[in-house]
Amino acid sequence: MATRATTGLNSYLCDKQQPMNLVSVGTVAFDSIETPFGKQERVIGGAATYISLAASYYIPQSGLISVIGDDFPKDVLQEMEKRGINQEGLQIKQGEKSFFWSGKYHYDMNARDTLDTQLNVLADFKPVVPESYQGCDFLMLGNLDPAVQLSVLEQLRERPRLVVLDTMNFWMDIALDKLKEVLKKVDVLTINDEEARQLSEEYSLVKAARKIMEMGPRYLIIKKGEHGALLFHEDRAFFAPALPLEEVVDPTGAGDTFAGGFIGYLAGARNISFDNMKRAIVVGSAMASFTCEKFGPERLMELDRETIDRRVQEFVDLVDFDIELVGA
Amino acid sequence: MATRATTGLNSYLCDKQQPMNLVSVGTVAFDSIETPFGKQERVIGGAATYISLAASYYIPQSGLISVIGDDFPKDVLQEMEKRGINQEGLQIKQGEKSFFWSGKYHYDMNARDTLDTQLNVLADFKPVVPESYQGCDFLMLGNLDPAVQLSVLEQLRERPRLVVLDTMNFWMDIALDKLKEVLKKVDVLTINDEEARQLSEEYSLVKAARKIMEMGPRYLIIKKGEHGALLFHEDRAFFAPALPLEEVVDPTGAGDTFAGGFIGYLAGARNISFDNMKRAIVVGSAMASFTCEKFGPERLMELDRETIDRRVQEFVDLVDFDIELVGA
Repeated sequence: MATRATTGLNSYLCDKQQPMNLVSVGTVAFDSIETPFGKQERVIGGAATYISLAASYYIPQSGLISVIGDDFPKDVLQEMEKRGINQEGLQIKQGEKSFFWSGKYHYDMNARDTLDTQLNVLADFKPVVPESYQGCDFLMLGNLDPAVQLSVLEQLRERPRLVVLDTMNFWMDIALDKLKEVLKKVDVLTINDEEARQLSEEYSLVKAARKIMEMGPRYLIIKKGEHGALLFHEDRAFFAPALPLEEVVDPTGAGDTFAGGFIGYLAGARNISFDNMKRAIVVGSAMASFTCEKFGPERLMELDRETIDRRVQEFVDLVDFDIELVGA
Repeated sequence: MATRATTGLNSYLCDKQQPMNLVSVGTVAFDSIETPFGKQERVIGGAATYISLAASYYIPQSGLISVIGDDFPKDVLQEMEKRGINQEGLQIKQGEKSFFWSGKYHYDMNARDTLDTQLNVLADFKPVVPESYQGCDFLMLGNLDPAVQLSVLEQLRERPRLVVLDTMNFWMDIALDKLKEVLKKVDVLTINDEEARQLSEEYSLVKAARKIMEMGPRYLIIKKGEHGALLFHEDRAFFAPALPLEEVVDPTGAGDTFAGGFIGYLAGARNISFDNMKRAIVVGSAMASFTCEKFGPERLMELDRETIDRRVQEFVDLVDFDIELVGA
C-alpha cells in the first residue's frame, strides 16, 4: 500500500510515509441492539469503528488503535482499509473473541439498559502506538478505560495539536482518579449533560462547563442526543440542534459518529479555531443523524460528501432566523 | 381609565374604545413550589398570569379571562392592570378560594411531581367574554380544561386572526375528545415532546408534527424546556435552543411565559408570517429563560425591553455559525 486510490467522492491518494494526521483509539466490537423499532444481533459496533468511519469522509487517512478477536469479519476490516483507515495499531488476538455489548433502548431513546457486556479481548488490552502514528496532529481518545487512553497519550513522543477525549459515567463511577489524570492532558472533552453534571457536581450546565474546563480541557462539548450539542470555550458557548428525524431506528454509535465527524472535519481543515469548531460540531451532528437511521454503521457507510452537505444545509435552515434588536 | 400612561420603555397610551388586540385565557392562581434549589409557599402563579405579563412587554393592552377567589392579592391585580392587562374578563368569586397547585421538581428539572391540586374556583368556571374583548385579533388559550377553551372560542363572534392553544398530557388522558374538538379550531398548538408523541402516537417528532397538523393546527410548537423549542409548519421546521443558564431556580411558568412572549410579539408586530413566528419563538425562549431565574413571576416582572433584547442577542450568538458547502 504505497499509494492507493478509491473512486467517487471519497477518492484520494494516501502515502504511508506521510505522518498520520489523525489517530483514533477505541473499541471495535459487536453489538446486539433492541430498540422500539427492531432488534439486530451482533452488528458491527465499537467507538473507534464509528469514529474512523465518520472521519474518513473528511481525511484521506487515519490510524486506528484497538483490539479484536479472530471472530471479527475480514471484509469489514478491508472496507475500513479501503476508506483509508490504517490498521497497524489494531491488534488481532488469535483464538479470542471481540468485545461484545448488548443493550435495549427505552421508548424514549435517550435512555438505554445494558443487557450484557463481554469484555473478551478488551479485558487486558495494552495499546501499542505504531511508529507510523508518531507525529499525528489529531488524537481522538474514544470511550474506553482512562488507563488505556492515558497509555496512548504517553506513548506519543510529541503531543498532538488537538486531543479530544470521549468518556462516560461508567468511568466516573469506577475510575474517577485515572479519568481526572487523563483529563488534565486533553483539549476537548465530549460527554452528555448528565455526565457533565455528575463530573462537576453542578446542575447548571454553564457552571458545570466552567468547573470542567478547570480540570484540564479548554473545550467542553456536551452531547444531548436528540436535543443537540453544546460547545463551551472560555466564556463562549455555541449550540447545534439535532435534526428532527423522520426515522430514528437505532441511536447506537451516534455519539461516536459525532466525535468522528467533529475531529475528522477539524483534521481535514487543519484548523482548530473556535469558528471552525462550530462548523465541526454541525458536521458531527449531521453525520450522527445519519447513523440513527439504520442499525449499526450501515447508514454511515453509505454516505458521500454531497449527501452530508445536503444534511448540513438542513441544519443551517433549521436554526436560521433574523431579528432586529433595538435595545441590544 | 380612558387613557393612561406608564413610564420607561413600556410606556404607551391605551384606549379602552380600541378593540383588544390580544385576549388570554388561563388560570390565575397560587403555587407552592419545591425545586432542588429552594422552596416557596403560595407564590403567584397561573398560566394566564405568566402569559399576560410576558405579552405586556410587546403590546400595550390585553384582555384576561380567568377566575379567582377573594384571597388573591389586590396589589398584584393592580400591578397587572398597570401593565395594560385589562381585567373585565376576570371573575372574582367572593368567599371562595383561588386555584392552588403544589409541585416538586426532580433534580432533572424537566420532570416534576404534582403534590396537591385544589381546583377551588376553577371547579365550575364558566368563562364569560366581555363585549370589549370582541374583535380581538389574537387569542391565547392557556392550559385549561378544553371545554373552557372551546367556550371562549365559541363566544367570540368573529374568529381571531390567530388562535394559539396550549395544553398538557392531563387533558389528553381525561378529555381527549373535547381536546380534539377544540384543536380543529386553532392555528397554533404548543405542547412538549412527550405530549406530541402521546397525541400523535408517533415517536419521530417529524411524523408526530405531520399527524398533529392534520388534526387542525397549521403550526405546531414543541416545547422542550431546557432543550429549546421546535416550530413546525407545512414542510418547514425551525429550532430555537434554550439558553444555557447560570442559575435555574424554578422553571414553573416558563412554558406559559414562552407562550405569552410568543403571542405578544406576534400581536405587537401584527405579523404572522413564518419568519416572524421564528422571531417570536426566539423572543418567547428568551423571556422564558428569565422566568427560570427566580421563583414565580418575580423575575418576569422586573424586565424591560432592553434587558430582553440583550438576552435575545445571546440567542443569536449562541446559534451563529457559517459554513461553506460545496455539495449542497
